[in-house]
Amino acid sequence: MRIANHAGRATLVIGDAGVERGIDLATASDGRFGPDPAPLYDLWPDLCRWAATFDTDSAETIGIDRAELGAPSPSPRQVFAIGLNYHEHAAESGFESPANLPPVFTKYVSSFSGPDTTVVIPDGGAVDWEVELVAVIGRRATNIGEDQAWGHIAGLTVGQDISERITQTRGPAPQFGLGKSYPGFSPQGPWLVTPDEVPDRDDLELGCTIDGEQMQKGRTRDLIFPVARLVAELSRNVTLYPGDVIFTGTPSGVGAGRDPKRFLAPGEHLDSWITGIGELHQTFVSDSE
Amino acid sequence: MRIANHAGRATLVIGDAGVERGIDLATASDGRFGPDPAPLYDLWPDLCRWAATFDTDSAETIGIDRAELGAPSPSPRQVFAIGLNYHEHAAESGFESPANLPPVFTKYVSSFSGPDTTVVIPDGGAVDWEVELVAVIGRRATNIGEDQAWGHIAGLTVGQDISERITQTRGPAPQFGLGKSYPGFSPQGPWLVTPDEVPDRDDLELGCTIDGEQMQKGRTRDLIFPVARLVAELSRNVTLYPGDVIFTGTPSGVGAGRDPKRFLAPGEHLDSWITGIGELHQTFVSDSE
Repeated sequence: MRIANHAGRATLVIGDAGVERGIDLATASDGRFGPDPAPLYDLWPDLCRWAATFDTDSAETIGIDRAELGAPSPSPRQVFAIGLNYHEHAAESGFESPANLPPVFTKYVSSFSGPDTTVVIPDGGAVDWEVELVAVIGRRATNIGEDQAWGHIAGLTVGQDISERITQTRGPAPQFGLGKSYPGFSPQGPWLVTPDEVPDRDDLELGCTIDGEQMQKGRTRDLIFPVARLVAELSRNVTLYPGDVIFTGTPSGVGAGRDPKRFLAPGEHLDSWITGIGELHQTFVSDSE
Repeated sequence: MRIANHAGRATLVIGDAGVERGIDLATASDGRFGPDPAPLYDLWPDLCRWAATFDTDSAETIGIDRAELGAPSPSPRQVFAIGLNYHEHAAESGFESPANLPPVFTKYVSSFSGPDTTVVIPDGGAVDWEVELVAVIGRRATNIGEDQAWGHIAGLTVGQDISERITQTRGPAPQFGLGKSYPGFSPQGPWLVTPDEVPDRDDLELGCTIDGEQMQKGRTRDLIFPVARLVAELSRNVTLYPGDVIFTGTPSGVGAGRDPKRFLAPGEHLDSWITGIGELHQTFVSDSE
């Protein structure tokens, strides 16, 4: 199952890549689910059961306008973002690989957006890219084991943990939350894909390009703390709620790790992708435009 | 105006300290406000106008059971917690006072609780206290000036930024969010007080004791970034939404800053207070109880 937040309405996505169509979930379910995509995650097991027997072939479909897509979980109670979760990225960032749970910070929800957007570069900002696999919680989790974790995950989507490095590194302690939460700095989408529909939930290829030039390319099998372990570890510290969003960390190839460093400039296009899920497209503009 | 989250219902608080009574807001307003305390903040200016003409003398009152009080803003979209925002606390923590905006992290909402609670010490944990003035947003704020900031604040309450120092300091970067978000680590209350009802919104005395022994005592006039400046600075980076919670930082006297260090032990009672707002009472127990 694939679920999009399309024009603010929960939407089932059907069809092959590039020719997807939508089915309005509230209409199809006679109001049982939707239209608001946010509370859907509180009903996730019910939704999965309903979708398993729903006949998509006879449903009315609508065209999907990518400009109308929002983040699949647009108002989570909690957002977790994981730092330094690939060995090569930890190294390029000047850190040893974490032995315990990697650094966990938040991306404030005011930075959330859909997959195809224009992003303003804050005045004087050094704006960097971090393509990430994003997991969304579908069932409350407190103190669960790693072997139970996938049963608490609604699905996966593509995320960009866009990061303004000057804010992030200024001050006596890392300013992760703010540096990574300027408006539009958390694009996600194009939709949520349930783990059974991706090629291999533990080994997905992800990457990003700037104006067609490859910047990052990695595989989620190289996550130091894979998705299930992250969910289990987090659940020993906090309760995870349906709709909670986890940015799982980025592979190597970010701009701050290059020599010379490279940051996004006005007019550049950042394209991010995960095989079997989809793509994000960001265009950057200056603060004065 | 004082607003409590009492038994999950928005409740007007009237009466002198120690003999407060409640007025059920949904009943008093004929359903216009409440009973859910969370969406109240989206209606804050309307609520203030309504309350200004509401006759509390003729309203039916209820007794307040402190054990039934929850956090005044129980499900904020965003939670901001400020580190190192008093000079003496920065010094005792081994940091220079921040010249720019101090470190901002989150306390995950699964750690929220009301004012009178029992808190489990995580197994092997070094649990510390940080009494803080907490501000709750009452009107959306994007890129506002410091002189406008108080107009965007619904009110003030007492908070404890309880912190497990081993988790917090383990790893290649500070683990603020998780170390400060174990269950029950964010008690708040007893109610929200509008800024016009506190003795001086920019100079409130706050402190805490353990089993009657004073641990912290400070004044909010010593905040390096006062409340209005915090709100203005945050609003230049993110959008602040109604109901958003800001823990403004703690004065000196935490356990990790002492020689020898001191942490909370099972059976100890932590009492926290801010003059003109109220008190929190936490009792600590071991993980095996």
